[in-house]
Amino acid sequence: MQYPEEIKMPESPKKPTLNDYLNENRERFERSLFELLAIPSVSAQSAHESDCRRAAEWLAGDFRQMNFSVKILETDEHPLVFAESPKINGAPTVLVYGHYDVQPTDPENAWQTPPFSPTVRDGKVYARGATDDKGPMLAHILGTEYWEKTGQTLRLNWKFLLEGDEECGGGGIEEYVRRNAEMLACDYLVLSDTPQFGPGQPAITCGLRGISYYELKLTGPRQDLHSGLFGGAITNPCTALTKMLSAIKDDRGKIAVPGFYDDVQRLTPEMHAQLEILAFNEDEFYADAGVSGGTGEEGFSVLERRWVRPSFDIHGLSGGYQGEGGKTILPASASAKFSFRLVPNQSPEKIHRSLETFLQKHCPAGIRMELIPLGKGTGGVTVDISSPCMQAAVRAMEFGFGRSPFFIWEGGSIPLVATFAECLTRNIMMIGLSQSTDNAHGPNEHFSLADFHRGIKTSARLWRELASL
Amino acid sequence: MQYPEEIKMPESPKKPTLNDYLNENRERFERSLFELLAIPSVSAQSAHESDCRRAAEWLAGDFRQMNFSVKILETDEHPLVFAESPKINGAPTVLVYGHYDVQPTDPENAWQTPPFSPTVRDGKVYARGATDDKGPMLAHILGTEYWEKTGQTLRLNWKFLLEGDEECGGGGIEEYVRRNAEMLACDYLVLSDTPQFGPGQPAITCGLRGISYYELKLTGPRQDLHSGLFGGAITNPCTALTKMLSAIKDDRGKIAVPGFYDDVQRLTPEMHAQLEILAFNEDEFYADAGVSGGTGEEGFSVLERRWVRPSFDIHGLSGGYQGEGGKTILPASASAKFSFRLVPNQSPEKIHRSLETFLQKHCPAGIRMELIPLGKGTGGVTVDISSPCMQAAVRAMEFGFGRSPFFIWEGGSIPLVATFAECLTRNIMMIGLSQSTDNAHGPNEHFSLADFHRGIKTSARLWRELASL
Repeated sequence: MQYPEEIKMPESPKKPTLNDYLNENRERFERSLFELLAIPSVSAQSAHESDCRRAAEWLAGDFRQMNFSVKILETDEHPLVFAESPKINGAPTVLVYGHYDVQPTDPENAWQTPPFSPTVRDGKVYARGATDDKGPMLAHILGTEYWEKTGQTLRLNWKFLLEGDEECGGGGIEEYVRRNAEMLACDYLVLSDTPQFGPGQPAITCGLRGISYYELKLTGPRQDLHSGLFGGAITNPCTALTKMLSAIKDDRGKIAVPGFYDDVQRLTPEMHAQLEILAFNEDEFYADAGVSGGTGEEGFSVLERRWVRPSFDIHGLSGGYQGEGGKTILPASASAKFSFRLVPNQSPEKIHRSLETFLQKHCPAGIRMELIPLGKGTGGVTVDISSPCMQAAVRAMEFGFGRSPFFIWEGGSIPLVATFAECLTRNIMMIGLSQSTDNAHGPNEHFSLADFHRGIKTSARLWRELASL
Repeated sequence: MQYPEEIKMPESPKKPTLNDYLNENRERFERSLFELLAIPSVSAQSAHESDCRRAAEWLAGDFRQMNFSVKILETDEHPLVFAESPKINGAPTVLVYGHYDVQPTDPENAWQTPPFSPTVRDGKVYARGATDDKGPMLAHILGTEYWEKTGQTLRLNWKFLLEGDEECGGGGIEEYVRRNAEMLACDYLVLSDTPQFGPGQPAITCGLRGISYYELKLTGPRQDLHSGLFGGAITNPCTALTKMLSAIKDDRGKIAVPGFYDDVQRLTPEMHAQLEILAFNEDEFYADAGVSGGTGEEGFSVLERRWVRPSFDIHGLSGGYQGEGGKTILPASASAKFSFRLVPNQSPEKIHRSLETFLQKHCPAGIRMELIPLGKGTGGVTVDISSPCMQAAVRAMEFGFGRSPFFIWEGGSIPLVATFAECLTRNIMMIGLSQSTDNAHGPNEHFSLADFHRGIKTSARLWRELASL
C-alpha cells in the first residue's frame, strides 16, 4: 500500500499514518462532537450551571483517555479545564485555548432543529456551539489524540486551557492568566476562535485591533429648561456633545486627537502584500451592509480601514427628550458611548490622557464634562507572518486544507489574546476553521463537518511542525 | 369729597369713580376669583370634563350680568366662551383672550393647601390656575364690569374669547380663529398670559419668537453591526448625526444654514434702548440656571440672545446603545429633535427649504436622511412700541401700577398670538400681570392679590384709553 509522500510519518513507520487514523476514526470523531454539542452549556443562564460542569467533565474525561493530567479548576463562575501531556524535558510547549460554553439559544423558534439535538444537513452539523467554539476546540483535542493514542511521541508538551465563561462576559480568565503565567508558560499558543476568510479559503489571523471604550457625560443647567426662554443664552449639552464628538474625527476621516497616530505602525511591505491579494469586493461589502457606499480614513482601502487602521465609533447617543412628538426643552445633560479601535503599538493609556485634554479644550462654557473609561482598554496584537511558528501553521493548513491559507486581520478585539501576548508568548497562531457565515450566536448555528475533519488534520500536522522547529 | 385729578371720570361726573368702585368691590372681586379658582377645570384629565364646562358656564354667567351676549361654543375638546358687549356702531372693537382651563396638580402632596381650595397667605392667593390664567383673565372681565355696570358707556366694543384647551395642547383654537376671523374681527387684541419683568416691575411684551421644530432621522446599515468588524469602513449614523448637527451652528454661535439671517430684522434704536434699560444681571442668570457661564451668538448680550435673536437648540438625541456599561455596536440609525427659534420676518417655510438642502449636502455617503417638520412652524411676532395702542397700554399700566411698564420680549413662542397677528390684528397688547415666580404649572401656584387689583384697574383704564384713540 502506497501513501502519498506528504503524509508519510517517518518517525514511526510501523504505526498508522495520520491519514489512515483520521479516516478510520472519522465517525467516532463526529459522534464525539455530537455528544459534546448535546450538552447545553449556556454559561449566561444559571439554569444551565450543571450543564456547564458536565461539559467540563466530559472534556476532562477525553484528556484522561490520552493520559493527560487534568484539573478542573474552580473559579467564581464556571470551571476551567486545564490539561497537560506527560512532561518531556527540553521540548517546546504549546498552549491550546478554547471555550466549552455557548451562547443562549433564543429566539428558540427560529431554529429548524432543536439547538442541543445536533443534526446533520448538507454536510453541516447544526447545533448551538457547533462553530463557536466546540467544533474548532475539539478539532485540536482530536488532532492531539493521534500522537498520544498511537504512541508516536512527539517532542512537544501540550497544555490545554478551556474556559466556560467566554460567552457570558465573566472575564475572570484574563486575571487568571496574569496570576498563573508560570503554570501556563508556553512557547506557542494556538486557538481557533477566529474564522476562515471564506468557504474553501482557510486563513490565519495575524492581527487584532485593540479598543478603548468611553462614556462621555455632559452636564449643563441644573434641570431641563424651556428652550424658548433660555435658548440661545444657555449652552445646550446636546449641542455641546455633537460639537465635541464631531471634533474627534476630521473631514478626511482622521482622528484629530493630538498624537493619536504617533505610535501607529505601518504594515510591513510583506504584510501589506498579503492584504492586497485578498479578493475583496467593496461594492458587495456595502450592499451586504445595506448601504449605498461608505466613508472612512482617506487614502486607505475598506479592508485597511476595517483591519489595520484605528477607528472611532459612537455606540450610543442619549440626551433630552426621546419620546413621541416634540418637547421644547434645553436639556440638563447629554451623554455618549464611543470607542477607538486601536492598532498594535498604540497605548490606551497615552490616548486616554490626550483625549481627556482634547475634550476639555473643546468643552464649551457652561458645560461640565466627565470622561469615564469603560474597561481598562486593550492594545492591538500583531503576529509576524514570517516567524517560524507562523510558517509552521501555514504548512499545517496546507496539509489539512489542501491549499495555502490567507493571512487576515480581525478588526475586533479579543482582550484575552492581548493578555496572552502580554503575559505568555507573542507566538500566537489563530487558525481559522469556522466560517463567518456559520451563524455563531444566531439561530441555526452550524459547522461544516469537512471543516471539522480538515481542522483535526491541520492540528495533528501542526504539532509535528512545531515539534520540528 | 375730592378725587385726585387723574381718576376723575369726566364723561359721567355723577357716577362712581373708578377708584371708588374698585375699592368698594374689592372683596367681591376676590370672592369671585376664589369661586372660579375652586372649579377644578383641568383640561388634560377627562375626569374633569364637567368641571371645565362648569368653569365655562360660570364665566358665561358673569358676562350675562353685564348684558353681554354670550355663546358657549362646542369644539372637539372643551367649549369656548365667546361674549360680546352690545354693539356700538362706529366704535373700535377690542378682543380679549384668556383661558379658563388649568394644568394638572401633580405632585399633589407638594401643595401646602389643596390646589382647588383657594387660600390667602401673605397677600397671595394659592390655587391651581391663580396666575395661569384665571386671575389675569378675570382682571379684564372685572375691569370691563365698571363701565358696563355703572352705565358709563364707552365708545368701545368688547369681545371676549376664552378657551378651555390651552393647557392640554388641544390646539383647535388656532384653526377656529382662522375659520372665524369675521366673527372675531377687532381693532385691538389684549391678553395677559405673559409675565411682568419682576415684582413691582410691570411689563408689556412687545415681541415673541417663533419656532421651527424638526426631527432628523439618519439610517445607515440594515442592522446594528459589530463595531470591531465594520468600524472605520461603514458610516456610523451616530457619528454622522453629530457632524450634521454640529455644522448647523458655527464656532461664533451663528447658524450656518445659508440665508438663515437674510430676513432677520434688527431692533429699531428705540426698541434697542428699551432692552438696554432693563436691569439684567447675567451672572445671576447663569447662577440661577446652575451653570458657571454660557455661550451664544457673538456680539449679542444674553437678553438679546434670549429674546430678539434666533437660536438653535437640540431637544433630544437618540441612537444606538443607551443601557448600562458598554456595547460595541455600529448602530443602524440615530435621530435628533431640534428647533430654531425665529424672530419676526423670518419665514419657517424658507428656512425649511434651505435647511433641507444644507443637511443633504452634509449627509455623508452610506447614510439616508429624513427631515421631518414637527408642526408647521410659527413666525415671530413683534408689536411696534410706539404705536398708539401700545402707548395707551403704557398709560393704563402707569395708572394701574403707579409706574411705567417695561417693554420686554418673550423668547418662547405663542402660536396663537402669531395666528392673531396673521388673521385679526397686529395691535396686540400683552399686558403682564403675573410674576414668573408665581409657580405656574408647578405646585403652590399663586397670584398676588395686589397684582390682581392692579390688573383690574389697568384693564378698566385701558378700555377708556382705547376708546379715546
